[in-house]
This record gives sequence, C-alpha cells and structure tokens, in this order.
Amino acid sequence: MKTYNNPTKENWNALTKRPAIDQKELGDLVTSIIENVKSKGNLALKEYALQFDKVTLNELTVSKEEIEKAKTSVPQELKDAIQLAYGNIYTFHTSQQTTEAVIETVKGVKCWRKSVGIEKVGLYIPGGSAPLFSTILMLGIPTKIAACKEVILCTPPSKDGTINPAILFTADLVGITKIYKAGGAQAIAAMAVGTETIPQVYKIFGPGNQYVTKAKELIQQMGVAIDMPAGPSEVLVIADRTCNPEFVAADLLSQAEHGPDSQVVLLSDSEETLTKCKIAVERQVQLLPRKDTALKALENSTAIVFKNMVECIEFSNQYAPEHLIIASENANQYVNDITNAGSVFLGNYSCESAGDYASGTNHTLPTNGFAKNYSGVSLDSFVKKITFQELNQQGIENIGEAIEIMAEAEGLFAHKNAVTLRLNEIRNDRN
Amino acid sequence: MKTYNNPTKENWNALTKRPAIDQKELGDLVTSIIENVKSKGNLALKEYALQFDKVTLNELTVSKEEIEKAKTSVPQELKDAIQLAYGNIYTFHTSQQTTEAVIETVKGVKCWRKSVGIEKVGLYIPGGSAPLFSTILMLGIPTKIAACKEVILCTPPSKDGTINPAILFTADLVGITKIYKAGGAQAIAAMAVGTETIPQVYKIFGPGNQYVTKAKELIQQMGVAIDMPAGPSEVLVIADRTCNPEFVAADLLSQAEHGPDSQVVLLSDSEETLTKCKIAVERQVQLLPRKDTALKALENSTAIVFKNMVECIEFSNQYAPEHLIIASENANQYVNDITNAGSVFLGNYSCESAGDYASGTNHTLPTNGFAKNYSGVSLDSFVKKITFQELNQQGIENIGEAIEIMAEAEGLFAHKNAVTLRLNEIRNDRN
Repeated sequence: MKTYNNPTKENWNALTKRPAIDQKELGDLVTSIIENVKSKGNLALKEYALQFDKVTLNELTVSKEEIEKAKTSVPQELKDAIQLAYGNIYTFHTSQQTTEAVIETVKGVKCWRKSVGIEKVGLYIPGGSAPLFSTILMLGIPTKIAACKEVILCTPPSKDGTINPAILFTADLVGITKIYKAGGAQAIAAMAVGTETIPQVYKIFGPGNQYVTKAKELIQQMGVAIDMPAGPSEVLVIADRTCNPEFVAADLLSQAEHGPDSQVVLLSDSEETLTKCKIAVERQVQLLPRKDTALKALENSTAIVFKNMVECIEFSNQYAPEHLIIASENANQYVNDITNAGSVFLGNYSCESAGDYASGTNHTLPTNGFAKNYSGVSLDSFVKKITFQELNQQGIENIGEAIEIMAEAEGLFAHKNAVTLRLNEIRNDRN
Repeated sequence: MKTYNNPTKENWNALTKRPAIDQKELGDLVTSIIENVKSKGNLALKEYALQFDKVTLNELTVSKEEIEKAKTSVPQELKDAIQLAYGNIYTFHTSQQTTEAVIETVKGVKCWRKSVGIEKVGLYIPGGSAPLFSTILMLGIPTKIAACKEVILCTPPSKDGTINPAILFTADLVGITKIYKAGGAQAIAAMAVGTETIPQVYKIFGPGNQYVTKAKELIQQMGVAIDMPAGPSEVLVIADRTCNPEFVAADLLSQAEHGPDSQVVLLSDSEETLTKCKIAVERQVQLLPRKDTALKALENSTAIVFKNMVECIEFSNQYAPEHLIIASENANQYVNDITNAGSVFLGNYSCESAGDYASGTNHTLPTNGFAKNYSGVSLDSFVKKITFQELNQQGIENIGEAIEIMAEAEGLFAHKNAVTLRLNEIRNDRN
C-alpha cells in the first residue's frame, strides 16, 4: 500500500483518482457483436459460445430437468444460507415499497404517483471462477417485490455446457424460470434486441467484464436502460484507534481478492493504527487462496493518515467510495457527515461481506466515484413512478388563469387555449 | 391525422413506432465541441456564442444587476402566476420526501437508507422562440428540496447579449444565483468538464435540440449523470363518448404546437367521437399562431378506433406515451390498468397544460417509449440514496455462518475470513 501522511488538500484530487479505463478500442468489437446478434439471433449466440466458452450448445434455454437436478445437488447448508440471505434481502427491499399519498395541491387539483414494475427485465450473471449466485438474490428479489412481469437471466455455460447448480437453485428460488446459456457482450446484446429464443427486455442489470460493460453502454444508447455505469469494485475504510486492526485488514483484503484492479483505500487519524492495520494485511494476505490477485490489488492501494476524523470523512466524500467502512466504536456519530458513498458499514462488526451476502442491503453499488451521482440498486431500480393528476372544475378554475398567463408568456397559445376553452365552458354552464 | 379502424394486434407494433432519430452524424461534431470546451474553456464558449448566438460576450456570468433589472421588468401578473405554480410544484415535490425506517432484518442487524442531495447540479434551459421559465420551476424547485449544494444554470443569450427576464426572475425565485450565458452542446460540455468560470457538475438536467441531446449522451459516457434520454414530445389521448371533443382537440393541438416532430395520438372506442374530435382539431388549428408547426405535426399523427376501452388502454401501454390523457368522465376506473406512461391526466378538466405549468407534477417526462423503463423527473432525480448498516456482536453471530458458507461457495475466502475473525473474537471474549 502506498502510504501518505497528511497530504495537503491540493493533492486530494489526485489521490481520489481511479485508474482510467480505456474502452475506446472495445467499441468496434462490441458493436460488431451486437450487430451480429441482431442479424443472426440464436445462431450468433451459439457461434460465440463455441468461440468464447468452448462449448457446442444445442439449446440456449436451460431445461426444467437441469434446474431440478441442480436443486438436488446443492448442499443443504448452502441452501439454508441462501434462504437466510433471501429472507433479509426480501425484508429490507420490501421496506422500500411506498404508497404515496394523493396530494391536493390546491382545492380541486389532485396529484399523486404510482410505482409500476418495469415489465421486462434482464439479469446478467457472469461465469468464470466465482459463481455469483448472491447477485441473483440482489437483483432477483426486487423484481419479485416490484412485480416485474417477465424476468430473464443470462449466464455463460461452462465447457461441458452446464450451469453451476447454485446459480440455478438461486434463480429458481427467486422465481426466475427463463434462464439462458449466453455470456459476455453477446448475452447483453441478445436481451437488448431479442432473438428467436431470448426475449427483448427494457432494462438490463448485472456485473461483468469490460466487454459486458461496453455492451451495456452501447445498448443504453439504443434506448434500453441499465442499472448503472460500472467500474472495478472498491472499499474505503476509515479506522480510528478504537478499531480492530485484524478486522480492518480482513475487510481490505476481501475487497483486494476481487480482482487485480480492485481499489482499496485505508484512512486513519492515527499513524499507529494505520501501521497496525498494514502489518495485519501483510500477514493475512499470505494465507489467502487468491493471494496473487490480492497482492496485485494492494500494489495500487492507498493508506493515508489525516489530522483528524473530520478530514478522513471529508476525503472519503470526495473519493465517493462504493463501500465505506467506518471501523470505529463511535461510527454512528459520523453518519450525518457522509455525503457520497454507495453503502456504509458502521462499527467493528459491520464487515463488507455482511452487505455482500446476507444483511439485507443490496450489493450492486456505484463504483468509480459514481456514488456522487448514482444510487445503488434498490427496489426503485425496478419500477417506474408514473404521475397522475385529476382536476375538477374547481381545480381548473383555481389554476387556469395562471396557466393561461404562463403559456402565453412562453408563446404557446394552444396550451393556453386548452385552458380557456374549459374555463369558458364552466362559466357558460353557470349562466 | 392518419386514421385506422380496429387494427389487428400484429399491426400495433408498427403503430407505436416513433420516427427514428439518426444522430450518428452529429457524434463527430459534438465530440469536437466537447474537446474544444475542455481545452480552451471560456474562450471556446465565447467563440461559439459568436458563431451560433451571433453575440460577442465579455462576461459569461449573468451579473446581479442583470438579475435585479429583470425582476423589475417582469409583469406582476406573470410573477403571480409563476408564484402560484411554484407553490403547487413545491408542495407536490415536498411530498416525495421520505424518511425511511431503520429495519432490523434479524436481531442485531440494522439496515436503512438515507437520501442525500446530489452536491453539484447543472440545469440547461434552451433559448429560441419560447423562454422556458416553467422548466426552471420543474428542475429548480426539487434542487431546493433536495438541498443540492451547488446549482448552476446555462442558457443561451439573445443577439443583444441579454437573457429573457422571465428566465432570470424564475431562476432567482428558485434560488439559483450562478447563471451563465452559454447554449447548445457547448453549454452541456462546460457543465460536464468545467471552465475557468463555469463549475463542473455531477448531473445535468434539461431539454434541448439534437446537439444538446447528443452532448448529454456523450458526457454521460464520461461519468456525468443526466436526467433521462430525450426525444420529441408526445401526447396520447384516449377519448370515449363522455369526452368533450373541443377539449380533446385543444389538448392534441397543445402538443402539436411544440414542434413539427411532436407525436400526437388519439384513441377512441367510438368512431363518432373520433370524428368529432378530428373535426374540432381541423377548426381550432386554423386559429393558432403556431398553425404551421401544428399542421406539420398533425401530418404524422395517428387516430385509431378500437373495439373498446380495454383495447385503447392496452395499446397505450404498448405505446408508452409521455403524456396520457383519459378524456372520459369515468377516467378513474382505468388507473390500475395503466402500466406505461410518463404522466397521466384523468378526466375532462385535466388538460396537459395543467401539468406543464401549474398543477404540481413535473413536466420533464420520458418520451419516445422510454416510459417503459424510465420515470419522469421527481425529487428522486436529485438525490442519491445511501444504504447504511450496523451489526452488533449478536448480529454477526446471527448471519455470520450463512455469510461464511456463501462466500466459500463463491470462492471468496477473504470475504469469509472477515466474518470468521469476528466470530472467533466474540467466542474468545466469551471464554
């Protein structure tokens, strides 16, 4: 970890910078993948499966038999763990439901909003070394609560053409029945444009590599919504003297093991505490199966001592971390000062892995400083809020003249006329 | 208006299509504008002002004197009208504030969300024939409620270098003090990258022409958030026998006068009603100052008779209109069937111009079918929701084992270890 001691504020901006991701050269390749899926449909997906996943697929759709078989092969203790997480995530996301009041802004003018689930939603779950069934919980459970009508899931098959059983078990648990063997940019393309087998959706969620990220960016320009822009995962830990350095080290490493590009930042108001945490990191990292990955991430990571906790929080707000851990017995007193963060973990027992898996909060969060302008995934991400209004005669009488004056001042006389006709009719009725 | 009678469902898709907008060729031009503003700052903005707005600007910033002068030159009746609209919009958007409960998902695990205003917000208000001060209310009032720290406004000057007084009056009313004379793609670029004078912001709102729309799309890829993707404005009116055909015609025309590319759709379960409405449109359009514009928009507009109201609503949901007017005395009974729309106007006295100006709802809404996957602007658009969690010892004991099992199954042993260390410490403390 690169260590800094009381950097001046002029240097903060440089210290909050993430490595630039140059995706320009990806654009042509991913555009061609999207065009290919658009013109050749299923055939393109099967060709890419052969090329990238090294597997010949007869069927893109995961069969009921495959799902049933997977359900029997997941160990009971993992099923129970997933069920526990399911319950907590369900509870927290259900609490995000709102029934908004009908507001009578002036007599006779009623306005309100109604949440309606986005009808067609696509989830992408990457393949590779880690089967991210936890992300299915995070994205699937809110689709149930939002009552999205059609939810589909794409995930790449392994070389033998199968899908990890925990993925299928979890998808089944959240009620997703349409699961397709498709990965990478081509899976995103398929959900955006539709194929003979895979339905077109209105919004696409889920993590992925740089090809997936680029594909999501491109299909967004085609009018398909996405969860949020993506970047490497990151954690910022603020640790004071009341922290447990071993816990801090473990939290930093659980971010570092994600990938060599993971961003790990440690702040403290105490040089001694910072040093203790760093020593613990050096010791713990040696024991990790993903040690090499973690060591690479740590090379680019930062540890900074600041004068006091106020400065730590201020720097954190400028960094806008995806995950912010306040490793302090007094964490609660800083809550109101936090302005930019994806998800915040308060105190010595709130480890990031709690939120990653089972506490109830969502783990799909804004990275790369996007916590300044984006929220993490929540129930809100799966609904549209439609506004309604109902004016009666009294209502249009109360605000009609103001509308006429404003419309005329904006030069929009048909807008004015729509009111004038109504006001005249009401006056004529009265006479 | 092109008229169709009971089209079969196979033809619905074609009837819901908007004209394709080809912005590809704009890309290079707008990219060069953004690059130019990035490298030359204020100088580039002044050069573009000379080129596009035909004005030599010494200062980009609107002075306090200009604002004070504007305030005295706005007619009192317009001020009063704007004040009335302000009150209603403020009331409705304040009702969108939520204080979310702290949820204890299991004993010792507390999760909650906190809304925090986006710190730096930029508003764009186009120039041209219509001074859209109403849009300043719609975008400015929620920034006040959300307590966004820095709100700036860019709008192009007229040829004499001034800004319409109603624009300045309204900006002052909503508390915006930083107003800059900059228009078009270059204004969006300036707010996205910052210049010597114009601060860089995190999210940009506001309507504009195709250059502005393209610039917003491009700066979104640079990490700056935008309100939503844009397209021509549109209304869909469902009128049954209980409608007032003159009102329906006036509402259709208040959409048609926006621009030649405005989308206007009329549905009815009664051919007789449809005909009455069309005749009223033909009569009323002759009286409009913007008659030529409205006539062009009407050329591309559609009137469709369906078997019944159920089919009308079904078609409307597939079309996903920005504005949906249900011109019927029984409008309320269809509320629960509406799944895709930006804003809905119920009954014969709820004209679109009410929502455009003064009822309280926001008029920045999803066009182009985006009502399927995007909400209109609301208080939500100006805040991030940050999740918090706090686990105590009992909390991590309750969910720790589940996290360990899930993390291990995903191959993430550092994630597991962060829990194991804590559980061990708790057990050691106890012994």
